[in-house]
Amino acid sequence: MADSPFIHDVPAARALDAWRSAREAGGCPARLPAVRVPLADAAGRVTAGPVWALRSSPPFDAAGMDGIAVRAADTLGASETTPVQLKPDAYDVVDTGDPMPDGRDAVVMREHVHYCDGRAELRAAVPPYQHVRSIGEDVSTSELLLPAGHRLRAVDLAAAAAAGATDVLVRRRPVVAVLPTGDEVRPIGATTGPGEILDTNSLMLATQAREAGCDAHCLPIEPDDPVGLAKAAGAAVADCDLLIIVAGSSAGRDDYTARIVAQLGTLAVHGVAVRPGHPVVLGVVAGTPVLGAPGYPVSAALTFDIFAEPLLAELAGAVPRHRPRAPARLARKLASPLGMDDWVRVRLGVVRGAMVATPLPRGAGVLTSLVRADGLLMVPAGLEGHHPGDEVQVELLRGLDEISHTIVAIGSHDLVLDLAASALRADDPRITLASSNVGSLGGLVALRDGLCHLAGSHLLDPATGEYTLPYLDRILGGQDVCVVRLVHRDQGLMVAPGNPLGLAGIEDLARAGVRYVNRQRGAGTRMLLDLELRQRGISPDAVAGYAREESTHLAVAAAIAAGRGDAGLGIMAAARAFGVDFLPVTREPYDLVVATADLQSPRLAPLWALLRSDRFQAAVTELGGYDTTEMGRRIR
Amino acid sequence: MADSPFIHDVPAARALDAWRSAREAGGCPARLPAVRVPLADAAGRVTAGPVWALRSSPPFDAAGMDGIAVRAADTLGASETTPVQLKPDAYDVVDTGDPMPDGRDAVVMREHVHYCDGRAELRAAVPPYQHVRSIGEDVSTSELLLPAGHRLRAVDLAAAAAAGATDVLVRRRPVVAVLPTGDEVRPIGATTGPGEILDTNSLMLATQAREAGCDAHCLPIEPDDPVGLAKAAGAAVADCDLLIIVAGSSAGRDDYTARIVAQLGTLAVHGVAVRPGHPVVLGVVAGTPVLGAPGYPVSAALTFDIFAEPLLAELAGAVPRHRPRAPARLARKLASPLGMDDWVRVRLGVVRGAMVATPLPRGAGVLTSLVRADGLLMVPAGLEGHHPGDEVQVELLRGLDEISHTIVAIGSHDLVLDLAASALRADDPRITLASSNVGSLGGLVALRDGLCHLAGSHLLDPATGEYTLPYLDRILGGQDVCVVRLVHRDQGLMVAPGNPLGLAGIEDLARAGVRYVNRQRGAGTRMLLDLELRQRGISPDAVAGYAREESTHLAVAAAIAAGRGDAGLGIMAAARAFGVDFLPVTREPYDLVVATADLQSPRLAPLWALLRSDRFQAAVTELGGYDTTEMGRRIR
Repeated sequence: MADSPFIHDVPAARALDAWRSAREAGGCPARLPAVRVPLADAAGRVTAGPVWALRSSPPFDAAGMDGIAVRAADTLGASETTPVQLKPDAYDVVDTGDPMPDGRDAVVMREHVHYCDGRAELRAAVPPYQHVRSIGEDVSTSELLLPAGHRLRAVDLAAAAAAGATDVLVRRRPVVAVLPTGDEVRPIGATTGPGEILDTNSLMLATQAREAGCDAHCLPIEPDDPVGLAKAAGAAVADCDLLIIVAGSSAGRDDYTARIVAQLGTLAVHGVAVRPGHPVVLGVVAGTPVLGAPGYPVSAALTFDIFAEPLLAELAGAVPRHRPRAPARLARKLASPLGMDDWVRVRLGVVRGAMVATPLPRGAGVLTSLVRADGLLMVPAGLEGHHPGDEVQVELLRGLDEISHTIVAIGSHDLVLDLAASALRADDPRITLASSNVGSLGGLVALRDGLCHLAGSHLLDPATGEYTLPYLDRILGGQDVCVVRLVHRDQGLMVAPGNPLGLAGIEDLARAGVRYVNRQRGAGTRMLLDLELRQRGISPDAVAGYAREESTHLAVAAAIAAGRGDAGLGIMAAARAFGVDFLPVTREPYDLVVATADLQSPRLAPLWALLRSDRFQAAVTELGGYDTTEMGRRIR
Repeated sequence: MADSPFIHDVPAARALDAWRSAREAGGCPARLPAVRVPLADAAGRVTAGPVWALRSSPPFDAAGMDGIAVRAADTLGASETTPVQLKPDAYDVVDTGDPMPDGRDAVVMREHVHYCDGRAELRAAVPPYQHVRSIGEDVSTSELLLPAGHRLRAVDLAAAAAAGATDVLVRRRPVVAVLPTGDEVRPIGATTGPGEILDTNSLMLATQAREAGCDAHCLPIEPDDPVGLAKAAGAAVADCDLLIIVAGSSAGRDDYTARIVAQLGTLAVHGVAVRPGHPVVLGVVAGTPVLGAPGYPVSAALTFDIFAEPLLAELAGAVPRHRPRAPARLARKLASPLGMDDWVRVRLGVVRGAMVATPLPRGAGVLTSLVRADGLLMVPAGLEGHHPGDEVQVELLRGLDEISHTIVAIGSHDLVLDLAASALRADDPRITLASSNVGSLGGLVALRDGLCHLAGSHLLDPATGEYTLPYLDRILGGQDVCVVRLVHRDQGLMVAPGNPLGLAGIEDLARAGVRYVNRQRGAGTRMLLDLELRQRGISPDAVAGYAREESTHLAVAAAIAAGRGDAGLGIMAAARAFGVDFLPVTREPYDLVVATADLQSPRLAPLWALLRSDRFQAAVTELGGYDTTEMGRRIR
């Protein structure tokens, strides 16, 4: 296909332009047809033309107050000392909204009228048109009420109704069809065998389309058969305004989509300089735009955002979505490939008055990075990344108000933090406890640099046998911090159920054939292992798998449970969660380090209250391997 | 009811508290019950509990690249000069996403493998777990995936599916019933007689409820009969989680609602210190919250925002909506009553780099003020208002990106501006041309103060007979501005069809029995009248209705058409729109004054292009009374 006309590995903007040209050449409509719908069904739809007022609102001059309607000229000269009395035929009692009776041009408020013998006595003159709502005060016949391209909200519908409309001309809703492909892809709810994956992308893309105001439907999963796939794609384009073909999980599977689009119509773009999302396919088949989305879920979601969303807005003639942006300080170094726009998911929080962005895992398969993201940060193709502390512009995925309620925890991972996050949220949905797992040491460094509110730590000092406290002066220097005890917890070796290798403890990790699963550098559990090995005179080199790093207890337990490792140090709750066996090694304290200035802040108050509650302590005890006796106690 | 327990005229926060206490005492649930729904139906719903991962994703160690799976130990020592050759039983070809075959712990990318005689030759050693996606990389079994109180988005559904869920526990959607009341209220689509109004509030409130994620239904309109209304309200509360009773248009009609709520259940609040919105009723009937909304549409809409929205979020356990805020400079003086939180609708635009807020009409009946609003500004009860130029915080109703595309026009009103607004928007839905009608003089002052991009002017200088230009130095001092001709237009007297009073021109305005409808001070049309009167030696006092001011041509035409005035000066297009007769008085130029620095700005470029287009000039000519010969020409 070297001499075929499509372009590849181009920046997103050029890809969008090429796709637009292909659509124009391929006979795709620029806008969807207009349809007339009743006002009651028009919320969220986009106006296909201007809406002019058909009648005035109010449709008559109306009383603006409860009182009496008078002729202003009749009140001339009225004052406290020279009241004017109006005979019953010179005034009419009116309620707010009543049409002004003929011959009356002003309203006197009820409170300012005194009656004597059926006459209305006024002690002040009133100017003409006092308290009169003029005809057309809200809108006049033939005035522009709503422009074309306006997404209709509740107030728009009511204003249109008041101006005489009963229906409104809107764009037909775009129809999006999602066609999943791949031999290994199974529908959601199916049991998956080895190497099979669930079709979560179709659900996601169809929901994204609905969130963008479209009708969406998912087609059956097509196996990797070019003939069948071409047939399915050819049939699908007849019934939709955008066909999204989702590649399976393999890299290179986008080639199928590209070949089929080229065969059935026009292939405009294959591959864009965007990460994640690179193997995007853009084309046109039989007058319908076709988007080939990568199978990696983060790539698929961002591909929709970058390529489908603007097209769908254009078809509806609506304003494309622009997420609000805000500046933030980057919590960590961020390396980024040259030549690619790199979309990084970040957690956000306000620490010491400044917005801080912590990058989430970057893998295109880590959909939870998008679930947990508060914002998106794009590192442009021309930049190699950012330094820690750099100010970056972030697209916000959550409101600033929510973000300002977020408690940012960086440091060691513990399930109690997850449990606390969930409990805080259940009490008050505005509160988020966002944990980034970088190990105890990384947490203390982040706290030092003003990047978090809490650092979770269980750092063992080999010299003293003490936890965490000896490190505070070393790492945090003169900073004023305090320490709140979260919990004591059992650390031990997680081994396969029934302990098939008959491991007794740390001393057996150097045994031939034992595959260890380690934690990352800076993790307290890693330091515990190192100390335990050193005490026994075992060299790390002697431990097979010492180089395999996972960043949470659960990830280690998962590897053991899957039989891809034989032993790993971690907490009992993680072993329980995965049903693997647990050989206790030690009981250690796990603490929260907090800047003293933050300790009494309203942001953290709900957390301290939670830690002291019996209900929460009972829930933690139930996880297993935890002692909550000192939970919430300030120990420094 | 002086000694009844309800509170009145209290700040919104106290009213919300009182309502909450009444709901708790009255047996209203704090949260709606949880229901289990399939993932495919769960978008937009709120989680009723935390969602924990039921399985890991990926559920196995998987290849992260296309290539071959190897044992890393087998590649030890491989280099460019000492390649390692692997026999076919020492590697497996894998695609991205394939499970790692037993005994393999690393992947070598396809591009780095050379085959010779069935053997795979490697020229570099690889570390263990290179290009392997660990089991649970995305999410581990038993990890917290989503907290309670989370509104489900596309990515959440996909992540839940990947973690083994097929359904999810969410809150039942709140059900809102809207009960419109009032003898004078007619359903939308009905023909209204004198004094009757359309029930636009029910459509608006039900749509607001749906926008907030609720199910909503409207009940039939109840006349002002306490017995029938009590019966309808009593029946309605059985089928909803919130009953909104909408008062008719009269002030004092809220008393009905208050009395019925007190009679059927608990009246907690009657009247809040909020404008517009004051006569709000809050209570509980038979375990269901009841909200009495005022009949004025702006009041009704804001009442929903302030009182219903937080309750509905609480019932669903979701985060209440918080609109983004931004600082803006106030374009005009803003007087505000003490003792009331005053919600002011504003138009927003970016002028000379700063966000400018222009207050829209304040009347509670002016729903178009909410339609046109880009933001809401709350003047707290303790403030008497703001000075022009004050920095205020504005709640944004539109995105900042859209606001930054807005062309802000302040000055005289002309239909051509409406037409241009509509045409610009149809071409590019991001562009808004926002006109505030304050008269020619006010527009020039606003331009001088940096509050708008364009000032529309047709100010006649009586001394020279010239329009607009003589005023520039006088009002704008040394500022560097240019002038672009919009159009020439016919000004004349609008009179009832058939000219029943036989008016010949300006000279007849002083005739007995002729009711004139005037424009506001500072309007070019008002100055034209003054000049025409002066030239004829007629005193304004001799013109009946001289004091009656309307702020647009259309409003004057509407008054004439409704028979509430006999003559008014205005443009021919307005007369045509209302089908009234037109007696030409003069032909005048209407110009746009622009800061020279803005003339070439990208924001204004689409407007200049439009003015020069034949298509647009033809559309203007069709309005009648316009000459487009000089349209778009820079005349200074």
